[in-house]
Amino acid sequence: MLRRYLPILTWLPHYNRRLCGADLLAGTIVTALVIPQSLAYALLAGLPAVVGLYASILPLLAYTLLGTSRTLAVGPVAIIALMTGAALSGVAPPGSPAYLEAALTLALLSGGLLVLMGALRLGFFANFLSHPVIGGFLSASGLLIAASQLAHLLGLEAGGYTAVALLTSLAGQLGATHWPTLAVGAGSLGFLVAVRRWGRPALTRLGLPGGLAGLLTRAGPVFAVAGTTALSAWLGLAGRGVAVVGEVPGGLPPLTLPGVDVELWRRLLVPALLISVVGFVESISMAQMLAAKRRERISPNQELVGLGGANLLSAVSGGMPVTGGLSRTVINFESGARTPMAGAFAALGIGLVTLALTPLLRHLPVATLAATITVAILTLVDIPLIRQTWRYSRGDFAAMAVTMALTLAEGVEAGIIGGVLLSIGLFLYRTSRPHSAVVGRIPGTEHFRSVTRHDTETVSHLALLRVDESLYFANARYLEDTLYDLVARRPALEHVVLICSAVNLIDASALESLDAINARLRDSRVTLHLAEVKGPVMDRLKQSRFLDDLEGRVFLSTYAAWSELSRAER
Amino acid sequence: MLRRYLPILTWLPHYNRRLCGADLLAGTIVTALVIPQSLAYALLAGLPAVVGLYASILPLLAYTLLGTSRTLAVGPVAIIALMTGAALSGVAPPGSPAYLEAALTLALLSGGLLVLMGALRLGFFANFLSHPVIGGFLSASGLLIAASQLAHLLGLEAGGYTAVALLTSLAGQLGATHWPTLAVGAGSLGFLVAVRRWGRPALTRLGLPGGLAGLLTRAGPVFAVAGTTALSAWLGLAGRGVAVVGEVPGGLPPLTLPGVDVELWRRLLVPALLISVVGFVESISMAQMLAAKRRERISPNQELVGLGGANLLSAVSGGMPVTGGLSRTVINFESGARTPMAGAFAALGIGLVTLALTPLLRHLPVATLAATITVAILTLVDIPLIRQTWRYSRGDFAAMAVTMALTLAEGVEAGIIGGVLLSIGLFLYRTSRPHSAVVGRIPGTEHFRSVTRHDTETVSHLALLRVDESLYFANARYLEDTLYDLVARRPALEHVVLICSAVNLIDASALESLDAINARLRDSRVTLHLAEVKGPVMDRLKQSRFLDDLEGRVFLSTYAAWSELSRAER
Repeated sequence: MLRRYLPILTWLPHYNRRLCGADLLAGTIVTALVIPQSLAYALLAGLPAVVGLYASILPLLAYTLLGTSRTLAVGPVAIIALMTGAALSGVAPPGSPAYLEAALTLALLSGGLLVLMGALRLGFFANFLSHPVIGGFLSASGLLIAASQLAHLLGLEAGGYTAVALLTSLAGQLGATHWPTLAVGAGSLGFLVAVRRWGRPALTRLGLPGGLAGLLTRAGPVFAVAGTTALSAWLGLAGRGVAVVGEVPGGLPPLTLPGVDVELWRRLLVPALLISVVGFVESISMAQMLAAKRRERISPNQELVGLGGANLLSAVSGGMPVTGGLSRTVINFESGARTPMAGAFAALGIGLVTLALTPLLRHLPVATLAATITVAILTLVDIPLIRQTWRYSRGDFAAMAVTMALTLAEGVEAGIIGGVLLSIGLFLYRTSRPHSAVVGRIPGTEHFRSVTRHDTETVSHLALLRVDESLYFANARYLEDTLYDLVARRPALEHVVLICSAVNLIDASALESLDAINARLRDSRVTLHLAEVKGPVMDRLKQSRFLDDLEGRVFLSTYAAWSELSRAER
Repeated sequence: MLRRYLPILTWLPHYNRRLCGADLLAGTIVTALVIPQSLAYALLAGLPAVVGLYASILPLLAYTLLGTSRTLAVGPVAIIALMTGAALSGVAPPGSPAYLEAALTLALLSGGLLVLMGALRLGFFANFLSHPVIGGFLSASGLLIAASQLAHLLGLEAGGYTAVALLTSLAGQLGATHWPTLAVGAGSLGFLVAVRRWGRPALTRLGLPGGLAGLLTRAGPVFAVAGTTALSAWLGLAGRGVAVVGEVPGGLPPLTLPGVDVELWRRLLVPALLISVVGFVESISMAQMLAAKRRERISPNQELVGLGGANLLSAVSGGMPVTGGLSRTVINFESGARTPMAGAFAALGIGLVTLALTPLLRHLPVATLAATITVAILTLVDIPLIRQTWRYSRGDFAAMAVTMALTLAEGVEAGIIGGVLLSIGLFLYRTSRPHSAVVGRIPGTEHFRSVTRHDTETVSHLALLRVDESLYFANARYLEDTLYDLVARRPALEHVVLICSAVNLIDASALESLDAINARLRDSRVTLHLAEVKGPVMDRLKQSRFLDDLEGRVFLSTYAAWSELSRAER
């Protein structure tokens, strides 16, 4: 029982020196590699860079205690940082103390909502973000983030969280491009792209083992940060107008308790909900993928609690909303992490860095961080997925396209909400006009197939109609229309058999429609029968009066109905 | 082609003297019997009584031209009048010229929306009002209307369109009850209830034929109106403080053209949409019921155009929103109407009454009309339906209960919107956790049934999983969880067969989940197979790369999969 709520108890008792060694190595590597992205994502959210470090300490400990994935690594991630920035820009001016306070409040609300959803077992909510909507949202967010980083690369100031706002603001000041900043930015960008593309094969060719070559390639941002920081200090770039991270307060994260400001809570509630759900979806799919590789299991509802706990601790330690991050998790997994203790070691490592090494960050050019974000983020733009969705289903593509367009034009919240509503609407529309087929007997067999697709045997006084959908309110009236049409078109009709092999549910509306169909067919001197009703559906029907009122019978198979009713008139 | 858009062309060419005689009789009876309710529903909407007559002339002609039901009778109805009053009370003070103008605008918008929905073939929108939601809404509206009429019966003034507002306002002034008004109201109420309950058997016992006895019983309100009007004129009740209809302008309906007021349109758009949809649902279910009785057909999309035309003509002739009314349609049908020409005759009759007889209405007590409404409306409160829904499905009952509670507490709009959202949410929740069963072979047969319900034959290295739902975004992740659970629980597993006999759709999200499942099972050294995939679903799958990537095979039947895979290891 206790293990269910504190998953750490499932693995800590079996913890040993071998596991500890593996986790310690992974934790150390993660510490070194995730520092640049932690700083960068804090800047992306409009927050001081050090907030990204704060958000990578206590939240990791919370997840170690509460999370069910063995290798998920929690921290600031790009999408959540973008959504955080978009949400905060609506409530406080960037850089103000109110903005910082709002970031903590957002993490608090998001953490509270996640824990609540976990406690109420509402993890299924996340399912309403369909793959096309998430795919479209990530691609559009990638473009938005790249557009926002363009300003930092050019040494300009551009605000806004929509593509229109960003690009118009940029276009107006292109002439004011700050060339030294652009040099640092473009240099970092070129270096990072080159490392990503050619680093691994080149290092392998130099004789390094594949694992180490991969790690060094992933360390590209660390080298970029170290190199440009040194360059910046040496050349005094800050004095030449290149934006740098600047003075970072040393020491451990501050203990913070966001105040209770009802008006602020009300304004941040929807963004917090969206951040929670998007973060959860991103995190859980990754955790499931990695768990499957080792035949481990994760519990979605407990994951909600784990991520919620991480966000709550982020809120009380000067952080920002966090979730399981793709790149840090991959680094953790590939560095050989075996248990969530690796996360605790990484927390310890980042804590030490925060305590001792922050003065070194003073000269780090912002353009380097922008280059890091840009290179990381463009992998989110998934053109093959867009093409593939178009080919597979126009409806799904429409949901994806609307999500992308709204995200770019109106911002992240409008994009997600619009995409979810459209995909729900499309699903309801699809199921409201179900596929149905009048079937006939394949001569000499007990098989029944659509009369329009196959040569079948039929008799004029009997219609066999198969409905390929659950019957519920949205298609109940469509079913009535279909049946009345059938009866009006075939004057010789005496029996209609509704084949329910694909009917998984009959709700109260459909039941009333069946009642009405039964009564109206009787008025037209046609008898309604059912066939192949599933067990659970039949159990339900037995609790209503429908079976008493039904004029015809319920046949176990279509063939039984055919044998009885086609013969009847002969 | 033209017939599709002008249904009158389908029957007018065959019109003859016999049909004309039947329609003329029905039209005359309808004229006589619907006048009290037309007046009453106008008052219910907060409008002058004569507006109810205006709305019963030109709209009927429009429906005669455009409607597809042979016997539907259009005019003001109780629910729509209630919704009209609720909508208008938000935008103008009752009794003001702006209020009248807003009523015309509401009819115009509602008519425009109906025609638009018909042209775009959006009739399916109405399907999202599930039976429990409509049932709950009608019951709650019946209670609301009864509460609102209580004030008129007691001679008090009570405003508001929620139960709370009405009852608190009434409770505060019960001491001021106007006894002469109460006498008229209670007398009318008693008379109407008595006629409704005992009229028909009593008249039959007196030797009248059943049809005539039924008609005279239905004419109860006409007698109540005539009797109390005479009484009121004779005793000078108006002078004693009894509210009467008062001076009614004689003559034909005024030609009116509601002005274009964008702000007003914006505020009335949602109410107009709800009025359109609710009116359409009420009207179409009745029209379908009657058409089925005579094996006629109606076209839902053309019905939208017909009702839309009726509302547009109502807007230009001083009327109010209208739709097909239950009691007037039943009167029309039972009086022997054969074609929509009966409606034209009724329009003519009501036109003549409006032209010549309105001075007689001056002394008609409002309390009599309130009694008419109350008796008619309490049949809307459908206790058996509520009980039946509770027994059949808790989910459907929840949607009904929420609709009722919201309608009573927050008003008609909140009730409908809340009910629709909840029923969609419940449907999505149900389908997001589909029923699935691990099946085994019934020994010696080719049948496969759930291993938990039947004695079946299974082998440890093969799992056959049947999913009883279409696979789409809301349950894609649930499917993944189910499969990973299965694999994690059964270490000896080598093959999983997903039986798709009840899968009517696989959307892009589910496809990606299947892709992921395939890949992750492969990582766990388990092979995924499919079985019994339907034709349309298979066609769709062939347009993706899934079948190329699938580790296992697609079997035509579960038995084929069993024969192949259970043998494989032996």
